[in-house]
This record gives sequence, structure tokens and C-alpha cells, in this order.
Amino acid sequence: MFKSYQTLLDSIKSTQKETFEAKARHHLDHLTKPKGSFGQLEDLATQIYTIFEGKMPQNIEPALLIVAAADHGVCCEDICPQPQEITHQMVLNIARGGAGISVLARHANMDMIVLDAGHREKCVDMENIKYIGYAEQSNNIAKEAAMTKEVCEGLILAGANEACLAKEKGYKILAIGEMGIGNTTPATALYCALYNLSPTDVTGPGAGLVKEKIPHKAQIIQKALDTHKDIIATKNPFDILSHVGGFEIAALCGVVLGAAAQKMPVIIDGFISVSAYVVAVAINPAVKDYAILSHASAEPGFKHVLKCLEQKPLLDLEMRLGEGTGCALAYPIIQAALKIYNEMATFESASVTHVK
Amino acid sequence: MFKSYQTLLDSIKSTQKETFEAKARHHLDHLTKPKGSFGQLEDLATQIYTIFEGKMPQNIEPALLIVAAADHGVCCEDICPQPQEITHQMVLNIARGGAGISVLARHANMDMIVLDAGHREKCVDMENIKYIGYAEQSNNIAKEAAMTKEVCEGLILAGANEACLAKEKGYKILAIGEMGIGNTTPATALYCALYNLSPTDVTGPGAGLVKEKIPHKAQIIQKALDTHKDIIATKNPFDILSHVGGFEIAALCGVVLGAAAQKMPVIIDGFISVSAYVVAVAINPAVKDYAILSHASAEPGFKHVLKCLEQKPLLDLEMRLGEGTGCALAYPIIQAALKIYNEMATFESASVTHVK
Repeated sequence: MFKSYQTLLDSIKSTQKETFEAKARHHLDHLTKPKGSFGQLEDLATQIYTIFEGKMPQNIEPALLIVAAADHGVCCEDICPQPQEITHQMVLNIARGGAGISVLARHANMDMIVLDAGHREKCVDMENIKYIGYAEQSNNIAKEAAMTKEVCEGLILAGANEACLAKEKGYKILAIGEMGIGNTTPATALYCALYNLSPTDVTGPGAGLVKEKIPHKAQIIQKALDTHKDIIATKNPFDILSHVGGFEIAALCGVVLGAAAQKMPVIIDGFISVSAYVVAVAINPAVKDYAILSHASAEPGFKHVLKCLEQKPLLDLEMRLGEGTGCALAYPIIQAALKIYNEMATFESASVTHVK
Repeated sequence: MFKSYQTLLDSIKSTQKETFEAKARHHLDHLTKPKGSFGQLEDLATQIYTIFEGKMPQNIEPALLIVAAADHGVCCEDICPQPQEITHQMVLNIARGGAGISVLARHANMDMIVLDAGHREKCVDMENIKYIGYAEQSNNIAKEAAMTKEVCEGLILAGANEACLAKEKGYKILAIGEMGIGNTTPATALYCALYNLSPTDVTGPGAGLVKEKIPHKAQIIQKALDTHKDIIATKNPFDILSHVGGFEIAALCGVVLGAAAQKMPVIIDGFISVSAYVVAVAINPAVKDYAILSHASAEPGFKHVLKCLEQKPLLDLEMRLGEGTGCALAYPIIQAALKIYNEMATFESASVTHVK
């Protein structure tokens, strides 16, 4: 377990790409298929081989999906049509097995845990919900910092230690998802602050804001950026997270940092989860080596974010649900990439003519 | 089983969209998620519900992947760097479990059968290879018709009856893939002939033709289009298939027609498989109701084809392998769509506030 935020940061190292990527490509190029014809599956297999430092695992099971949930003070600014009570209702629905992610995680044979990073109702005691929070909701980012430095560090550390615990339990891959009414607002604020994007370009409908109200939402995000402009000018990702982020985003940022620190691959979901990932990348770009983007959010600003990140998710099924649903659909594809690497015949073993 | 090509054609009917689509959407809109937020998964669930005429199956298992293989006389025109012997070698590799599709079909828990539609070597006797052919390879389409009307009908019927047999055995969904050295050439010729596209725009490297030789390949395809211009002018898809197509493409066209005739969903693979599908759609557009496009081929002409088809595949993982590999990756996503429909809680059952 990580004793402090600093210990966590000190543990993150890049993968040894120069040593392992060429070896993986060499193996892939001798399998019975035209060179490179498995496209992104070959990139995935190469990434996994590199993360596991040349000891390709037989499989990438079991997998744990960590869903962080929280409420957001900025909801009082009328940025979201859903009432905040839905956060709690959906946390229960996820834990009880009825939500979209519950169904898809079962389908993909992923285990799932909900991290309650602080929301407005007390959760019932269930074995797949863990409370890691400090308050009922973040402060209204349009007017003040979302949370204190101490809360932000605490949430990051709790997320990272959840990744630790998962590794101890034998999980070989992690995934992140979220639930929190109003959380496209802090996510969008983070993108704008970290990538110097305009709220007018990036703000979208989230879970279903009518078109006419999107300019108002963009204004609130602009107000948050104005309120915290001195912090944003420092370009310090931790401070930006604590000022314009949210509890679940901080916790997921911690999961991503924790996965990287322990050399575990981690699957990233859509718009909100990627905002946690983007903060983690800003803290230490080595995090990119361990991350797999699962799904391109249908949220209109997401294309700008991907351009800044210079990464392409595996899937684009026009989904805009979050919860980790993209991860659950991407996981079987990652498993497929590993099987290609491990199980395909070579030109030699199958006596197939090799045209180079 | 279909007694004749005409019986097969007469059996194909459109799905009853006007009756069933709204019912499926109504159910989906009451599940605990923002309306429409599962994107293409909701389209898939709606399509499956409509195909099964409102009796949503508990699952869409088992699945059968039909891989058709053949050789092509046009290979003598130097349109492909691979020697034709690889067709046979890969048929054996697929059947023995070492090919890319063998690995992915196992991963997706799909059964697989290889239809040998005629290739230059006699297959060893294996239970998962079935001979349905008439000759060692198609004729050189640059100079003469690929096959006679009788052979073309025979192959279509054999493919359709394989779909029949699958239904009898209890398969709920079919998928198509192919293997045949040189087969991007007839596939491209079919696209150009049916959609009035130019070989210069659509011709690509296939399994690995060097860039410098692509103009030559396009010239050969243009030569085929010139040779058969009177047939192409009639716009008769069957005649176009028999003149510029190939044996495996005819067989797969039959599988698609057979699936539609029996109201079975059928998953379509990449560049070659889609050419078989496009012929089937030209024969009867109702076929579209039963088909699910799995993967956007990395072959550069494919975007023109999709534009003409007005359809979007589920995946784009930059693959260009064929064999049915896209189908095997798409199948778990189709299963996921069905589970979403069958297993998610409703707003009412989960006591989640429903904001319409």
C-alpha cells in the first residue's frame, strides 16, 4: 500500500519500450497473417507484453472494474436536468446488478466494486460498496475550490490503494468507471483548464441537457475557470483537480496512478473517466504506457480531448453512458489480442509460405 | 432446405419494422440509463427483437461462423504477392485451430465450419471442412466469366443450405468469413460493377501488395469491367457475380440470402465478405434487415463502399485480415446488446427517478 501521495508518485516508472516492443512485434510478424493485419490488436498485444516486461501472461484474468461515485456542488447552478438523488439510486442499482454496467461487467466476467467517494446519502452496507469519502458533495466549482488539498490527496491515495489491494488479490488488469449526477461539468472544466480549451467548444449535453441550455452550462464552466484562473495558470495538475474537479474524478485519478505504479494495465472508460486519466497523465506522462482507452464518448467535446491526448480509443459505438460500460466492452478485445499472441500458429509451425 | 435458387429468393421477406421497432425502443427507454445512451447497442437490440418478431431470445447462442475458401484464376495477372498455395495451407491452418480466426472464434465461443468452394488442392478429410465446389479455381475475370451460371447458382444454393442446416442444428446467429489468395480483386470488381465506382478509387493493397503495384491491380480490375461491360450494364447482380466474382463470394452470398430467408441474424466480416453481402443486397434489399456489419476494413476503398451501402460497421480496429475475424470480435458486443435488453433494471423496478 502507498503510505503517502508522494510515495505513490515516486513509484511510477515508464515501461521499457525500447527493450520489449521490438520483441513483441517480431513474434507477431511470424504468426500466420499478413504483417500488421490485426491492426490495433497487435498494438494491444505489444503493450501488454511490454507492461509485463516480456513475460507474456497466459491470460489477462481476473479483471476488476472500479466504479467511483460522488455528488457535485455545482449542480445548484442548473447544469443538469437530473436531480442529484439519482446518484444514490444508481449506486444502489449498480451494486444490486440492474444497471448497464452491472449487466456488461457480468457479461465480460469482470468483478466490480463501487467506491463511494462522497455523495449526498449514506449508502446501505453492501459488500461491493466501499466508502472512501470525506463529505456529501464537492463545493460549487463556479465559486470555490471543489475540495481541499487534504481531501484531494486522500481520495487519490484511496483510489491508488484500491489498485494495490486488487493486485494483492491477484487481479491482472483494472478498469475505471463512474457515476455522479452533474459530473460532465467538472470533467469539462478539467479539460479546458489542462488543455487550454474553450468551454464553448467542449461543453455538451452530458446525460441529456436540452440543447438550449448548453450555453448556460458552458457559462458556468467558464465561471469556474475564471474563479480559479490563478491556480490554472500554474499548470499544476493536482491543484487544478482539487479546484475544478470532483471526488470520483480524484479517486479514479488515484486508481490510474496506482495501476501505473504497480505496472498493471488499466482500461479507461469515456468522458468522465478520461478526465481522471488526463489529470494522471499531466501528473506523470508515464501513466500512458499502462492505459488502454476503451470508448470514444459521444459527448461532442471528446474529439478535442483525444486530439490533445494523441490517443485513439478501441471502440466508438456512439455510447454516452459512462459507468465503465466502454471498459466492459473493450475487455474481451484485449483478451482477444493476448490470445492472438499466445495461440496463433507461426508460418513455420503451420507450414504456411511466408511472403515477407 | 432450399430446392432451387428461385425458391430461396422467394423466401426472403423484410422484417416487420413498423410493428416491432417502436416496441423495442419503448422497452429500452424505460431501462435505467439516459435515453439512447447505449448508442449502437440499442440499435442492435432493436434489430434482434425485430428479427425475432417480438419474441426476444434469452440469448443469441450458439453461433456458427461459416468461412468459405476458394482460388482465383485472376491470380495469373500478378495482382497479389502471395502464391496461391497459401489458400490451401491456410484452409488447413484454420481447420486445425492455428489461424487468427481459429483463435478468435474459440475466444468468442463460436463454432466454425470451412466451406471449400473450390481451390487448387484437394483438402484432407476433416470434419470441419466441407467441399461444395465445382472446379480448382474461378476463371480469369480479366478475360472471361469467373464461372458459369450453373456453378454460381450451385454455390449460392450450397451456402444457403448451409444456413438451413445451421438453423436445423439450433444455431441462432450466423457469421461469414473467407480465405482465398487474390480475392480482393474480384471483390473490388464487384464493388465497381454494382456501385459504378472507379477501380482507381477502390483498389488497395489487399494482403500486402506493394504500393507501386496497386495501379497495375487497378488496371486488371478495369480490364475485367471492360470485358464484362455488357453484363454490368444490365445491372443484374447474379450475372455480375458470376462474371466478375469468385467461388467463395458466391457461397457467402448464399449464406447471407439463406440467413435472411430463414429470419436469422447474420454477421458480416470485412472487405471480401461485404462484397458477398453487397451482391445479396442487390438481389434483394430486404437482406439488410438481417445483417450486422462487424468491422470496417482498413482497405482504402471500403469507405466508398460503406457510403453506397449507407451502413456503419460496429468496429474499426484497423484490421485487414478477413477470415471472419471482425465477426468474432463483434459477436460479444451483439450478445451484450441482448443482455442490456433482457437484464437491465427499469426506472420503476430499481426505484430510480425517471427524467424524460
